[in-house]
Formats: sequence, C-alpha cells, structure tokens
Amino acid sequence: MAAPAVIAVDLGGTSLRAALAGPDGQLGPIRRTRTDARGGPESVVAQIAALVAEVCAAGNDPEVLGVGLASPGPLDPFTGTVFTLPTFQGWHNVPLRDLVARATGLPVTLENDAASAAMGEWRFGAGRGVDSLVYVTVSTGIGGGVILDGRLLHGRMGMAGHVGHMILEPDGPRCGCGNRGCWEALASGTALGRIVREQLAAGAPSSMQAIAGRPVTAEDVVTAARAGDPLGVALLAAEARYLGIGIVSLLHLFSPERVILGGGVSTALDLMAPGIAAEIAERAMAPFRSVPVVAAALGGNVGLAGAAAMAFQSARVPVS
Amino acid sequence: MAAPAVIAVDLGGTSLRAALAGPDGQLGPIRRTRTDARGGPESVVAQIAALVAEVCAAGNDPEVLGVGLASPGPLDPFTGTVFTLPTFQGWHNVPLRDLVARATGLPVTLENDAASAAMGEWRFGAGRGVDSLVYVTVSTGIGGGVILDGRLLHGRMGMAGHVGHMILEPDGPRCGCGNRGCWEALASGTALGRIVREQLAAGAPSSMQAIAGRPVTAEDVVTAARAGDPLGVALLAAEARYLGIGIVSLLHLFSPERVILGGGVSTALDLMAPGIAAEIAERAMAPFRSVPVVAAALGGNVGLAGAAAMAFQSARVPVS
Repeated sequence: MAAPAVIAVDLGGTSLRAALAGPDGQLGPIRRTRTDARGGPESVVAQIAALVAEVCAAGNDPEVLGVGLASPGPLDPFTGTVFTLPTFQGWHNVPLRDLVARATGLPVTLENDAASAAMGEWRFGAGRGVDSLVYVTVSTGIGGGVILDGRLLHGRMGMAGHVGHMILEPDGPRCGCGNRGCWEALASGTALGRIVREQLAAGAPSSMQAIAGRPVTAEDVVTAARAGDPLGVALLAAEARYLGIGIVSLLHLFSPERVILGGGVSTALDLMAPGIAAEIAERAMAPFRSVPVVAAALGGNVGLAGAAAMAFQSARVPVS
Repeated sequence: MAAPAVIAVDLGGTSLRAALAGPDGQLGPIRRTRTDARGGPESVVAQIAALVAEVCAAGNDPEVLGVGLASPGPLDPFTGTVFTLPTFQGWHNVPLRDLVARATGLPVTLENDAASAAMGEWRFGAGRGVDSLVYVTVSTGIGGGVILDGRLLHGRMGMAGHVGHMILEPDGPRCGCGNRGCWEALASGTALGRIVREQLAAGAPSSMQAIAGRPVTAEDVVTAARAGDPLGVALLAAEARYLGIGIVSLLHLFSPERVILGGGVSTALDLMAPGIAAEIAERAMAPFRSVPVVAAALGGNVGLAGAAAMAFQSARVPVS
C-alpha cells in the first residue's frame, strides 16, 4: 500500500484490534490481541504500540499519517484523557492519547467508541452522503454518537450523545447509571433480557421456558420471535415501541437526515421496523416523519472504521 | 453611529419590531408596528421594509451590513423559506429571506425565533463565554435552540432543537403536536394553567379559588406560590420536577456547558431552582451534575439581540 494510510485501533474490554486503513475505508488484515485489562495503562499502551508496529511492518511501507484510537469512556477527546475504564484496573485520568503518541511516534486521535462508530458509519457505512445523522447502538447498554451539520458533536468534555440516558419514564426501572427510566433501562439488550426472565419466572407460556442451565437473554427473545413464539413476538413489539419513542425524541432534538441503529439488538431490526415506523408515524411532527431509520452497515468493524475516519480527519485527508 | 451595524428584525404574531444594533449587542431605539398577520406575505414584507428604512433613516448614517430576521417557524434557514406561520393568513412556502432582501436591498439572514434567541443569549446574554449551551424557553409552549462546539445546530431543514417535543411520559397528556407526553405537554405555561384549573375544579383549597371572571393561568400559580399558597407551591414543585427531568436528558444528549431558561415560566426560576437542582443531583450522571442552569438575561429583546448576532455572523464581523 503506497497510498496514504492510517492505523485504526479499537480498544475493547476483551480484545484489542488494529488494522491499516485507506481513505476508502478499506481495512488491511486485522491484528488482534487479548486486552490486558488488569495490567494498568502502561501494559495496554505497550500492547497498542506493539500492534501498531506489527501493522506497519506488514503494510508494505505505507505512508502512515497517524493513529485513530477508539476507546471505551468516559474520556475527553480534546485533552486525550481517559477518565476511567469501568472494566479495567488502574485507569484513572490517563493521558492515553499522549502515551500512545509517545510510544508509536505517530499523531494520535482519541475518541470514545460510540462517537467513533458514528464517524465510521458516516464516512464508510450507512451514513454516507448525509450531513446529519444520529447513530444509536443497542446492546448491553444504549450508546450513540451524533453527526450534525457535517461535524461530530462533542459538547463539554466531549460528552455529547449519551442518548441511552435520555429519560423516557421518570418513574421507570432503575438504570445502571443510578437514574430511573432511562432509555437504556427500558430498551437495551440487558433490559430485554431482564424483562423476558421476569415474564418467564411469572409463568408466561413460551418456548423459552425450555431453556435451562443458563439465563435467558435478549438473543433468545429474537430467536423465539423469529420462530413465532408469542412471548418473543410480544416482547420484540414492546422493544420496538420503546426504540420508536426514543427515536422520535432524537428526531425532534437533533433533526438528523438519517437514524442508524447498530449493536446486537439491531440484528432484529427487520422484525422491529414496522413497530418503530408506527411510533414515528403516530408521534413525530409531520416534517420529521420521513426520516429513514436504517441498520448499521459495518458490523463488528465499525470501531476500526471510525478510528480510521477520525485519523484521516485529523490529517485533513478527505475520505470516501 | 458610524461603526458597522446591522438591523435586527423580530417578527412576531402580534408585533413587528426592528432596531439598529452594534457588535456589542447594544440596540438603538426600537421601532415597532402591529404585524399585519392577516394581510399575507406581501404586506408583512412591506412592513419589514418600511421599518428597516425608518431605522436606517434614524441611525445617523450607519454602515449597515445586513438584516437579521427572527421569525416564527417552521422555516428553513438554509433556503430562507417559511413553510407556514400558524397564526398568520396566506403563508405557505414563502421565500421570506429573498423577499426581504429584494425589498430592502440588504443581505438578510433568517432564523426561527427560538434558535435566534439561543444566538442572542450566547453572544450578548447569559451564554457569553461558553462554546456549548442549550437555551430553553418555557411559555405557551417549550422551544429551544442549541449552540454546540461554537455553532448553532441546524440539522435537516434547520429543525434541530425542538426540545419541547422530547417525550417524557409516553402515555402522558396529549400535546398540541398530536403526540402524547411531550415535555411541552407536561411543563409549558399552557400545561401548568391546565393543571391548576383541573385542581381548582376538583376543589383543591387555594387562594386561587377566589379568581373569577377569567381562566386561572400559570402566572397566577407563580403569584400564589410567592404568597405561600400551598397549591401554588405544590404545582411549582411539580413544574420544577418536570423541568429538571427534561434538563437532565438535555445534559446527557448535548453536554452543554450551561443551560439557559427563558420565557414566562422562567420568571419563577428562583422558586424552582432548588427543585430543578434536586432532579439533576438525583438523575444526572456524575460528570454532568455541575453544569449550571441559569436564567436568560435578555428578556423581551432576546429576539432582536439574536437577529443582530446572526446578521453579524453572516457578515463575518465578530461580536462581544
């Protein structure tokens, strides 16, 4: 690869991945390692530097413009500081961007993983060609990132886009954040798993009653719904309703041209699309109703794609 | 005034106002007329042109850079088109910006009134010195405008910032927009008036039972609360709770450095501040809790100030 390239790095709680990426979003071979989440920042920085060196060495002498690094948060993309990483040990106000820059000798752009995913879908995925989009990822939690008027929204300390902690039911179930009735507490994969287990424990008739030896999950609900199980169908309908309600608020607040749904739960978007559309038709103000809600396009590589998009943006190289 | 100036115009349903404005936000004498809301666009454009000419003539030969025009919506600030004006007659897809430019011979910047107010508070009011703020106006409805990362958010068709139609209770009271449980349906001045009248009709003991010959309003609730009336105090506490819940969602979604409350209901912010602060302390994630919620500073002139700020921005003249 002789064209200008960047190195995209996706730091996750279990795996750390890196790849060379071109301005067309194409990723080279992905190198990965198990994240040393217990080893503290020094160890993880050394892991990142080693992966970056591997990727460079394998890259046939590319002109590497910089590193894009997607990381869990909370973090401040302006100062490059990671405040804390919930499932990691020994992370407290770590200047991750500068540590990686020093270890690799390359300019580094740091962004939280949801914002990075929004950038990835915008530049290389389901958001190509628009100036404004809201990206929502529904899995363990609900996260998001917002591109508006051609720019990723940051806000104070880069913390804009915590869409999962929009309140939908002030007296609703307790959220992991301590609040009540957040979108995440009502409609995340975790919430859907909790709800199905409650229903099964209360004796609701369902093929999922036969699942034994492990907790029933949101994935089981999707599988059951696909097979026509009435409880599965009803729970996905309720899930679609909550997703639709949250999306209506996002339409009114941000006025995106497109809403992109990613994360595990969105694999059932085909089943939920009619329910989501019904909420939008019923609740959104007329000029907002035609905004499409689409599935994310990049799957598991969205973090790397977003990291690449950020690094190219920092290097002021246009992408397509 | 020999320094560069702009002409700020605030188009309202009942009155049309205009003034010369300097880059320091100081307004010259305000000229006003009764809006000819029944006369159609041609008549209103002629009224605007006449006011602009009056302001220019009285302005001691200023160097006028352009006109900033704040108008009710919905409108598209990019194309300068007003889609419709609910309380006006004969307005349907009117190219207001271009009509006023032709009639005045000046460049015109058009923005909806809530966005314009956000600009006014940012440049000349309670938002000076920050890069990111959410402005919320609570009166008949709930409207807003968002400045993020140093720019007014527009989104598709300039419709970002419809904060009043964020859903807080999916099965809540019907909103004027047709949806249920919007923030506006729960916490606007109109909603507060409806709630107090329901409570009084149900026989709630209150000094407001003595009000006769006209409907009891949100203003009466504030007056009663100031005098220690238990119903007034309880209703303002409930109002503060809803405002606080909505503000928590806005903090998580936009991550502003400041939240600015304007509009009629915000005149009771002193009474409601503790209730709002309690919701934020209980519901916001830790890094968002320290964001100040402050009263708007510009009062009734916020539309003119915002129109001035927009015109200076279009002319690329810095303001302070």
